[in-house]
Amino acid sequence: MKLQVTQENLHKALSSVGRVANSRGTLPILSNVLLKTIGNRLSIAATNLDIAITHFIGSKVADEGAITVPARLMNDFVASLPSGTITLELDDTKLKISTDQYQSVINGTNAEEYPVMPAISEGTQWTIPSNVLRGGLQQVLMAASSDESRPVLTGAYLHTHNKKLYMVATDSYRLAEKVLMPTPTDIDLLIPASALQDLLRIVADTEDEVSVTHDEQQILFRVGDVELVARLIEGTYPDYRKLIPKDFAQSGVVQKAEFINITKVSSLFARESAGSVTLHLDPEKQAISIRSVASQLGENTAHASGKITGEGVITLNSRYILDALHAMVGEEVRIAFNGKLEPCVLNSPKQGDYLHVIMPLKS
Amino acid sequence: MKLQVTQENLHKALSSVGRVANSRGTLPILSNVLLKTIGNRLSIAATNLDIAITHFIGSKVADEGAITVPARLMNDFVASLPSGTITLELDDTKLKISTDQYQSVINGTNAEEYPVMPAISEGTQWTIPSNVLRGGLQQVLMAASSDESRPVLTGAYLHTHNKKLYMVATDSYRLAEKVLMPTPTDIDLLIPASALQDLLRIVADTEDEVSVTHDEQQILFRVGDVELVARLIEGTYPDYRKLIPKDFAQSGVVQKAEFINITKVSSLFARESAGSVTLHLDPEKQAISIRSVASQLGENTAHASGKITGEGVITLNSRYILDALHAMVGEEVRIAFNGKLEPCVLNSPKQGDYLHVIMPLKS
Repeated sequence: MKLQVTQENLHKALSSVGRVANSRGTLPILSNVLLKTIGNRLSIAATNLDIAITHFIGSKVADEGAITVPARLMNDFVASLPSGTITLELDDTKLKISTDQYQSVINGTNAEEYPVMPAISEGTQWTIPSNVLRGGLQQVLMAASSDESRPVLTGAYLHTHNKKLYMVATDSYRLAEKVLMPTPTDIDLLIPASALQDLLRIVADTEDEVSVTHDEQQILFRVGDVELVARLIEGTYPDYRKLIPKDFAQSGVVQKAEFINITKVSSLFARESAGSVTLHLDPEKQAISIRSVASQLGENTAHASGKITGEGVITLNSRYILDALHAMVGEEVRIAFNGKLEPCVLNSPKQGDYLHVIMPLKS
Repeated sequence: MKLQVTQENLHKALSSVGRVANSRGTLPILSNVLLKTIGNRLSIAATNLDIAITHFIGSKVADEGAITVPARLMNDFVASLPSGTITLELDDTKLKISTDQYQSVINGTNAEEYPVMPAISEGTQWTIPSNVLRGGLQQVLMAASSDESRPVLTGAYLHTHNKKLYMVATDSYRLAEKVLMPTPTDIDLLIPASALQDLLRIVADTEDEVSVTHDEQQILFRVGDVELVARLIEGTYPDYRKLIPKDFAQSGVVQKAEFINITKVSSLFARESAGSVTLHLDPEKQAISIRSVASQLGENTAHASGKITGEGVITLNSRYILDALHAMVGEEVRIAFNGKLEPCVLNSPKQGDYLHVIMPLKS
């Protein structure tokens, strides 16, 4: 293998695939990245056996070849190099990396020892604009569970309902649902949220269309010169729609920025009560108040004015409120519930395609 | 106690003194801050028994009084409040904090239980411009030791020599020396570097003159409305001047930015050798090269052009080189040594009042 690439392209590819390379696993080679010439391109790839990411970058290839090298060292090293041309040359398993000023050797491992990258030969295929996918991921992923004991909740549920494509995540304490677009085909997929976090980084700064291909076991996202393959989660997603109330006894519309501020301040006094804060909708004062009590340290009450209908109190986890508020678009946010025992719904009066549900805490 | 202050002033004072309040100590009350009215000012103070910091802020005092409250909660809370007027009112040991939108109660502890703040009644007094003090601290403190087994090395040595005031720190592996100004009086003080780190934050954004008062045991810095008192370190500082070579067999002048870059890149390959890199001055090529070897991972050589006199190699800790380079002013830096066993001196050709000495590693 002998080739030339630019520092900018190699750096971008390494920092993206490097996140997947894991040095804490049982298979040491999974902390490496796989470099491989394919025609006049260099592919930079890594997998943790659940997810695989591959970047293809333009390259002046003199000799073909492949090698794997430690991801972290290679990434840190290339990140430190000045911009410009980098020459990669393989001597047995030693990868020589050179620029005008720097000559390095990184000891690699034979590419044949690297696990075969997952691939999808046939499957359903459709496309989604990157800004639609990005918006959905940003508004939904925070609600997915990280508790591996209930695998279905660690995924985001992408599915067709009433001819629309929905993305949903829930950890059973809160739920986020987004209507993405008219459904391109009949879709019912449960995708690991961790893979979608990686996908979010990949689509963070692109306006390219994203091509999606899936079969029974796997899903492939292709955007520009990047591919991400993830294993689908098996299992049936909970019938979450019946949990979302349609009518409300109490509701209020408040300025989002103010709601965020009073929740943040109250959360300081809610540290010893696992974030528990009590909201009070007061139609007489046309205000929402939020109260937290720390038995040892003290207590706090804060309020914000709003348009309030129906008096009521509800106790929620302040972190979930903040996550929901930060995901909302627009300057105003609506909070609505049916007494202190039923789920609380937050949404933006201006964006009907997104909602957040938070289960109340016992107060 | 009942008074009004601005959020801006209270926040600034709390975040400064809050660093001294320590929740991990054996005396729980040392995690509190002491609030106390003094005439028409509020004093906000904290001590860890070695250092004490007091801020005085303007205040509309209705009732005098004093209380201590948990530093972290108070600081986080006030930081979260919007700018504007804050009312503090004491009800027994409960401190009520209110603004238009927020009403809080923080449970305090009687001020009489707080340790007496150290004070200096008489002593030598002189002044130093804040920019001179700040420059000295920024260029010297990084070389102080954090190893408590040799207390004198955990301090910075402020002393008079040839009618000039010097500040020096060394951890016995490297040394930084700065000439501050003509000496105001005969000075010989060993001040804890940790206290000086706090002082550096206090003088970070002021142009006020700093007033210094010291007796046998303590030193007081007063700048604007802030006071810092620290206990002096007892003991005799090593006679470091004899360690600094005056003449050199090898020397080179290189661009500082380039020297930083090649050292950073080389340090990536020096992780398993505790940062050890080998410098080579090559008068023939008029270049300095830096080489690091990681037996398992690989190796790196990088070079930068410079004005070189005398060929030689020396092995140094890359972290110390980077610390020294970052502390230098000007675009060029001079490195000089006498073979690989003697101390290496770095300085700026443009700034004769500062130098850095690094002891070589065995190679």
